[in-house]
Amino acid sequence: MMAQGSFVVNNPAWRERLEPLLKGQHFMQLLGLKLTVIEPGYVEAEMEIQSVQRQALGFLHGGVMATICDIVAGVAAFNLIRSDQHVVTGEIKISYLNPGVGDKVKAIGRVIKQGRMISFCEADVYVEGNGNLVHVARASTSMVIIEESGAIKG
Amino acid sequence: MMAQGSFVVNNPAWRERLEPLLKGQHFMQLLGLKLTVIEPGYVEAEMEIQSVQRQALGFLHGGVMATICDIVAGVAAFNLIRSDQHVVTGEIKISYLNPGVGDKVKAIGRVIKQGRMISFCEADVYVEGNGNLVHVARASTSMVIIEESGAIKG
Amino acid sequence: MMAQGSFVVNNPAWRERLEPLLKGQHFMQLLGLKLTVIEPGYVEAEMEIQSVQRQALGFLHGGVMATICDIVAGVAAFNLIRSDQHVVTGEIKISYLNPGVGDKVKAIGRVIKQGRMISFCEADVYVEGNGNLVHVARASTSMVIIEESGAIKG
Amino acid sequence: MMAQGSFVVNNPAWRERLEPLLKGQHFMQLLGLKLTVIEPGYVEAEMEIQSVQRQALGFLHGGVMATICDIVAGVAAFNLIRSDQHVVTGEIKISYLNPGVGDKVKAIGRVIKQGRMISFCEADVYVEGNGNLVHVARASTSMVIIEESGAIKG
Repeated sequence: MMAQGSFVVNNPAWRERLEPLLKGQHFMQLLGLKLTVIEPGYVEAEMEIQSVQRQALGFLHGGVMATICDIVAGVAAFNLIRSDQHVVTGEIKISYLNPGVGDKVKAIGRVIKQGRMISFCEADVYVEGNGNLVHVARASTSMVIIEESGAIKG
Repeated sequence: MMAQGSFVVNNPAWRERLEPLLKGQHFMQLLGLKLTVIEPGYVEAEMEIQSVQRQALGFLHGGVMATICDIVAGVAAFNLIRSDQHVVTGEIKISYLNPGVGDKVKAIGRVIKQGRMISFCEADVYVEGNGNLVHVARASTSMVIIEESGAIKG
Repeated sequence: MMAQGSFVVNNPAWRERLEPLLKGQHFMQLLGLKLTVIEPGYVEAEMEIQSVQRQALGFLHGGVMATICDIVAGVAAFNLIRSDQHVVTGEIKISYLNPGVGDKVKAIGRVIKQGRMISFCEADVYVEGNGNLVHVARASTSMVIIEESGAIKG
Repeated sequence: MMAQGSFVVNNPAWRERLEPLLKGQHFMQLLGLKLTVIEPGYVEAEMEIQSVQRQALGFLHGGVMATICDIVAGVAAFNLIRSDQHVVTGEIKISYLNPGVGDKVKAIGRVIKQGRMISFCEADVYVEGNGNLVHVARASTSMVIIEESGAIKG
């Protein structure tokens, strides 16, 4: 157990444990999301927007932004748990601040309160286009810490 | 203007307007989501779960469920607006009630309060597997009615 | 342990345990909220609206509605837990569907998914005035089940 | 119209308009909440915790925290609107990060995205006790800008 910033890192080998799990994140790979900074309680990510990810008006689909928020917040919480625990999303709220017009996504996920049962997290999504970086979404989520996958919220 | 159930249908030709918009919903098509019932203020959908839509533990990814909720709720709200209006998601909250274990998704979107500026909607996602239908997600969302695409929440 | 409807009642003496706790709910008493139906996973309540509960435009204050939602959902979840557990509100989202114009409040709280760590609940608030009953608020909340008060979300 | 920080102040006389409205906020006065800093898009508040505001376990009631979040976020949004507009809470989500143990509340409300129809806001509540200041609640809310009180979300 090792405090880092204001967080307690319960599994010093979290990075080794995370790597194969990310490889199993097929939906993340389908989106083309790349995690560029991975620290305990904090994650940054980037993605080139593909035309298939736009909705009917031509903007980045809200579901893609929700997925990105879920991933970066979830990984930020994952990096703090014990090796016999998992993290699942209990609930997430996404506020769509601006339409997603542009070519590239930058995202940040962070733990705002590490807990024993729930880690409260937030995520922000920005879209870059024409030299501007616009804040398009902000999420607030309860990441639930479970002891084993079979007992999920049951 | 025509009342249907407790809703006011502001564009009698909503079905004709919806069809080409759905064809432009590339991300929905990527997921393989099919709208099976489309009525004013009410939508049902189905989807075969693809392995790429599962997350690291093998369950249906929360981002896929969020996307489905966003789509069925958004279309339910769309069917009530005037022909010079659009609907955009202001915010959405998704509660993950049970893990998504199974092969097929069924989803329902409905307007719970039609408004002039905001239509409050809900969505439910169920996953079918081994003969069971499990309620996996429930969403609550503010669908914002805008006059023209250029003025979105600006 | 006794199944009632689709719920498992983990403390058959829940009603005896609840009574003194409600007497300690000073803020609920300040509001004048009365619980009229109390069953496992389901609660109804009523309240006469006092002028002090109105906001600047004369409508029932959103904070009063949030408080009512929190209480009826929390008690609905409480009635299902073991005698060595407590329930605390992890998060709550309230959608304000219509302005609260009238004299009397009716409210309903219910568990939509009983869980081992989290019971997902909903609440609805209606205001009665001039012979009409208007749906003014709908809430979605995560009620967290804790083992002892000292360990709350820590 | 006057830009202040990143906000546009649409009514230079907002402070004169706000004062009588705050006097009509009876529920805020009942709580004893005092706004200590009031700027366009930003508000701070303080409150001495009264025993009547505690819930059954002795902590500050979640409904009181929700009310405080609603007020400080709402006033932050109010200070930016035109003189012929009003602000009403569309929805609010409150995450309860820590139990509210202590004697005094400090709260902050701020606009994170000023809009034409919706201003997205956030609020934080801290409780002071035994020389510590603990972050107890964080809220995310859609403040809806309406043209006249009669047309609220109708």
